[in-house]
Amino acid sequence: RSLTIGLIPADGIGKEVIPAAQKIIEHVIDKVDFVNLDAGFELFQKTGVALPDETVEILKKCDGALFGAVSSPSHKVAGYSSPIVALRKKMDLYANVRPVSSAKGALGKPIDMLIIRENTECLYIKSERLEKDPKTGLQTAWADRRITEYASKRIAKMAFDMALVRAKNPTIHSKPKVTIVHKSNVLSVTDGLFRESCRAVAQNPEYKDVIVEEQLVDSMVYRMFREPEVFDVVVAPNLYGDIISDGAAALVGSLGVVASANVGDNFVIGEPVHGSAPDIAGKGISNPIAAIRSAAMLLDHLGYNAEATKIKVAVDTVLTEGKTLTPDLGGKATTEQVTSKVIANL
Amino acid sequence: RSLTIGLIPADGIGKEVIPAAQKIIEHVIDKVDFVNLDAGFELFQKTGVALPDETVEILKKCDGALFGAVSSPSHKVAGYSSPIVALRKKMDLYANVRPVSSAKGALGKPIDMLIIRENTECLYIKSERLEKDPKTGLQTAWADRRITEYASKRIAKMAFDMALVRAKNPTIHSKPKVTIVHKSNVLSVTDGLFRESCRAVAQNPEYKDVIVEEQLVDSMVYRMFREPEVFDVVVAPNLYGDIISDGAAALVGSLGVVASANVGDNFVIGEPVHGSAPDIAGKGISNPIAAIRSAAMLLDHLGYNAEATKIKVAVDTVLTEGKTLTPDLGGKATTEQVTSKVIANL
Ligand SMILES: CC(C)[C@H](C(=O)O)[C@@H](O)C(=O)O
Ligand SMILES: CC(C)[C@H](C(=O)O)[C@@H](O)C(=O)O
Repeated sequence: RSLTIGLIPADGIGKEVIPAAQKIIEHVIDKVDFVNLDAGFELFQKTGVALPDETVEILKKCDGALFGAVSSPSHKVAGYSSPIVALRKKMDLYANVRPVSSAKGALGKPIDMLIIRENTECLYIKSERLEKDPKTGLQTAWADRRITEYASKRIAKMAFDMALVRAKNPTIHSKPKVTIVHKSNVLSVTDGLFRESCRAVAQNPEYKDVIVEEQLVDSMVYRMFREPEVFDVVVAPNLYGDIISDGAAALVGSLGVVASANVGDNFVIGEPVHGSAPDIAGKGISNPIAAIRSAAMLLDHLGYNAEATKIKVAVDTVLTEGKTLTPDLGGKATTEQVTSKVIANL
Repeated sequence: RSLTIGLIPADGIGKEVIPAAQKIIEHVIDKVDFVNLDAGFELFQKTGVALPDETVEILKKCDGALFGAVSSPSHKVAGYSSPIVALRKKMDLYANVRPVSSAKGALGKPIDMLIIRENTECLYIKSERLEKDPKTGLQTAWADRRITEYASKRIAKMAFDMALVRAKNPTIHSKPKVTIVHKSNVLSVTDGLFRESCRAVAQNPEYKDVIVEEQLVDSMVYRMFREPEVFDVVVAPNLYGDIISDGAAALVGSLGVVASANVGDNFVIGEPVHGSAPDIAGKGISNPIAAIRSAAMLLDHLGYNAEATKIKVAVDTVLTEGKTLTPDLGGKATTEQVTSKVIANL
């Protein structure tokens, strides 16, 4: 059968790195069709719609997809809402899986983390409202944060399952470990529920060999930078997961190399962790590695494991050689040169 | 007149570092009285109260105070609520001011940041509730996040004022700069209000020489590690400020050296940024530097500027010499030895 992959480059360098990832997929898979789909802030500026219904409808008929990056408005824009956040919710892609690893991280220490970010709730439900005091004219804004037992247990289960899968292959960790990130010393009810739900999942006899630890989110950011080598799988509510994964990216040299997959029970969207980088967009020097690795994660989920591994190995080779790198990694290569170099190593 | 300072060591190493800071203050100020006050999780475990009314009442008669650190319960504890969060609210200490600097940070780059964290609202209002679905028995937890124009403008004003004050003394920054941290690409209403409020304050002609920048909180954590030298004053809502300051601490070697002041219009509480460190509590090896620097910040706010500077210089000397350091900084000295060394340099 032939594979159909939706491509949503969206904004800025998304339009450069997604075509690069497409080329790589074409090289490892014979029968594959691509469908280009619209979304993004730039689209919103033109049409008033950031995520067309059509994009979602066509996507549902694809086997999987790749998303580029989305720009953030530089001031308040009525009616605009992030298309990637909407997509995750609409397709119930409840986990954002972010592997971060490097034999020698920024601090000279190895790092081999898998961040599992809950992808559907927390403050990302975007239930907000604004009030104005009729007397003073001063505004007060409110946002709801929702944490459910259902979503917390579901994401915890994925974290523990992944810890067991990882333990089958050699990593820098001698035993599988899951670190639960929360801030229950302040948010005893919401983060308390997240933590208790993860703890309840940990009780499953299947997971008896998995070490369970906890970190308050502030302390997590601190310790991740001091001793990144101690973290294996990290599970976190949506916002903390967002922050931690950007922090972890700094430890492996650049956001330009960190991939993610938005995973649901029936669909997967690969997505580089980096943003749309308006400062370098259009210059042809954006790093395609994160998008290419996201493509590998997508293929892995679709069952094309050998092809995924081939891509991963080729990327690692290019990075280890260190000769063909984009400026974010201290090199002088273009997006196209890095892409060609990966292809040469396939 | 004689100065009266409240001391609230609270939990764990708070009980070691606050007496150290007390010794230092005694050395630089002739007429000073100290009042020891109770609070903390350990107190809660004994008495069911984490912050006695009496502590707050006596505190209000003091000129200022020092707070140690508070332990976090390792599981759900009904009725417990963090005393430092409560204190900040009760005394309207609306700003948490956290200077982080080092001539040569963890990545070999200089860092000279002042983090101004809003201290009274955001998710820290702790307005939470739990629901249970009667059919499934599954729980849903909700938390309210509140951001007001009033508090946002108040904290922004402090940030811009501090930027101007800092610009009078040589720093690594050639021009004063304020970076506004938010996540308005997702939380367009609450973080949107924070951002717009800061932007409105920036319009004040007084601040015309201050450069204004913005960072999304995830990107902020990333960039802080990649190029810490570009940040001067950073202003953030409560939770982001909490996370960022722990992250910044990792860049200057240890949480054990980062001080803060909880500042209101009428009162100041100095507070080391580190926690109660149960793993090393009682061993006499906790780093007193953060508490000592917090004491200096307190004295500065109380108008004892020369004394504050004396302490700061002595601490810098001890750190630069690098001979008498606690284990968190790679040394072998005890809390007492570091304290004596600082005294010797006063
Ligand atoms: C673009 C933004 C809405 C998004 C998020 O916060 O989830 C991004 O930061 C990410 O991590 O994928
Ligand atoms: C102990 C905890 C409630 C506190 C906070 O989150 O404010 C601490 O992390 C801090 O930064 O002072």
